[in-house]
Amino acid sequence: MAHSSRLVDMVHERIEDFLAERTSILRSISADLEPLDGFSRRFLSGGKRFRALFCYWGWEAVRTRGFDPFEAAEGPDRFPVVSAAAALELFHAAALVHDDLIDRSDTRRGLPSAHRLFEGLHAESGWAGDAADFGVDAAILLGDLLLGWSDEILDEGLDALADRAAARASRREFMRMRTEVTAGQYLDILEERAWVVQPDDEQRLRAERVIVYKSAKYSIEAPLVIGASLAGATESQIRTLRDFGLPLGIAYQLRDDLLGVFGDPEVTGKPSGDDLREGKRTVLVAIARERLAAGQRRLLDELLGDASLSAEQVRMLQRTISECGAVDEIEQIIARNAARAVAALDDAPLGHEARNELAAMAKTVTRRTS
Amino acid sequence: MAHSSRLVDMVHERIEDFLAERTSILRSISADLEPLDGFSRRFLSGGKRFRALFCYWGWEAVRTRGFDPFEAAEGPDRFPVVSAAAALELFHAAALVHDDLIDRSDTRRGLPSAHRLFEGLHAESGWAGDAADFGVDAAILLGDLLLGWSDEILDEGLDALADRAAARASRREFMRMRTEVTAGQYLDILEERAWVVQPDDEQRLRAERVIVYKSAKYSIEAPLVIGASLAGATESQIRTLRDFGLPLGIAYQLRDDLLGVFGDPEVTGKPSGDDLREGKRTVLVAIARERLAAGQRRLLDELLGDASLSAEQVRMLQRTISECGAVDEIEQIIARNAARAVAALDDAPLGHEARNELAAMAKTVTRRTS
Repeated sequence: MAHSSRLVDMVHERIEDFLAERTSILRSISADLEPLDGFSRRFLSGGKRFRALFCYWGWEAVRTRGFDPFEAAEGPDRFPVVSAAAALELFHAAALVHDDLIDRSDTRRGLPSAHRLFEGLHAESGWAGDAADFGVDAAILLGDLLLGWSDEILDEGLDALADRAAARASRREFMRMRTEVTAGQYLDILEERAWVVQPDDEQRLRAERVIVYKSAKYSIEAPLVIGASLAGATESQIRTLRDFGLPLGIAYQLRDDLLGVFGDPEVTGKPSGDDLREGKRTVLVAIARERLAAGQRRLLDELLGDASLSAEQVRMLQRTISECGAVDEIEQIIARNAARAVAALDDAPLGHEARNELAAMAKTVTRRTS
Repeated sequence: MAHSSRLVDMVHERIEDFLAERTSILRSISADLEPLDGFSRRFLSGGKRFRALFCYWGWEAVRTRGFDPFEAAEGPDRFPVVSAAAALELFHAAALVHDDLIDRSDTRRGLPSAHRLFEGLHAESGWAGDAADFGVDAAILLGDLLLGWSDEILDEGLDALADRAAARASRREFMRMRTEVTAGQYLDILEERAWVVQPDDEQRLRAERVIVYKSAKYSIEAPLVIGASLAGATESQIRTLRDFGLPLGIAYQLRDDLLGVFGDPEVTGKPSGDDLREGKRTVLVAIARERLAAGQRRLLDELLGDASLSAEQVRMLQRTISECGAVDEIEQIIARNAARAVAALDDAPLGHEARNELAAMAKTVTRRTS
């Protein structure tokens, strides 16, 4: 893990250096742009950096497999992979800024979300007009800015790579990830509204499709492949990493869904039962609906998505979902997917240390409490 | 102009081909994504394609200057420049989708804006929840999708270019443009609110800064330089194109400001006096404020940004702004900047046909009525 924590520091430094250059452009335009700078740093300073780590270990897994001792003296050039890992973090920060707008979330990691920060800035500055409107508008722009920057930092890394085919392969995966995660987010917000006109027996399948694109591929499979491609991965190495990444990503998101309903606000930094108030149509909800009797199902449908749910109502919904056996079923699916992921690493054509590290990370992301 | 209209067709085709590939990814995920596809095409099918044209003529200006007759038999490879021009159009479509959200505009080119389209889709589909909320959320995602795609189509073009230094220079300008226009948009939405705490005598300067970054560099200077860089422009060629593009861009935007207040809705596709209801703090408004007596200035400040202005109030504001001489002054500034732009082309180290074409376009963009 010492290796991983060094990587996290390198990514952090890379992001800091990059932001320093970009914000010098902002500063040359106007001092009024300072909040774009300050709030960017705020959203990039924390987080678990899972995506960066999967990218790095995807790279390391391929690099150390075909290890050339003559290269060892100098050590590998980590700039491309650290840049790609940083790009994933910048992209994620952009997605979170827009996601919090879409979910109307007031907090992110226990602190105000971006639109709330801008709203606060408006309120304390004595400006004209509506503070909340300004918050939304400015957060749309902050997300756009970070989205563009994620792409720039990736390109800086790819430009430094001599192997052009590897650079192109890595970039292609990044691009596809970007399209797929946006599509997944659209399906997510659609499902919150469209479930009402969908057949009951399709809801689980539809919820599964959302997590595959919105989360599983995005959070784990794509970062692994982006990193591995940088090291010139073979098709069989890429296939192995996908076989590991996709089920692990599903397990990861199912854990997230459980935390969204049952998580401890002190640990998650989000209000208790947040997903219930938002009305997310998760796999957990789909399974609960399959298991509940008609009357309880109607009650669940009625309360889900009601932003004004009381603490008592949240507790009642938590009990309903848990007692029908949906939580146990989700835990079983998590365990099954995590096992399938780890099994994909057996005899995999990947470096030894990286395989161990990936197996350890599989435990971390499926057993986490925040 | 035949040359230009051929180019417009090529850009249009390039966008169509690109979208066909991208939407096949969407279709492989879910048929529910069809609206992202359909609405993208809608926002990319129209428009004046100014940015694409400036990009193309920037390229042509440099290419034909150092023209090699041995190359002529085959003709130049237009794929990189057509891709860059298409990237500018895709980026612009993304910006408009988010811009209409920010400005709360119901229409774009006389048709419903993206968030209104999604809102309509919700209403006609019988989904749960609030239709307007869905419209906003989906439009945020559509803009994000187009933003990512603009970058992809650019890269496809740059990848096909043998001259790596030229590719990097072109990309660097695209990146800078993206940061600057987002900063400019932020300053724009800021100014609508923050003018109230700014000294009166700085408002014109602040409004000028907004149009330089939000519009002048973005709409004309950057597209020219992006195109010129692809052809391997020298520093002196780039400088000339900037000397032409920046003042022309300022003139272009000042014309836009006039149209935003006085434009014919039949021609502009926007409601009459739209900018007045939005409360845009344009250079036109800043000049009017300098010229008006205190009482009239207070009235202007009071009405500007009132979304419920009546047709009569709009006419009254139009008269106030016109009669104080602000319109005449803006017309003079437009003429002065347009002249400065055209003068920069005299004896410029650029191809002959391109110089003529750029001079003709300078007329078009500063004298337009929509």
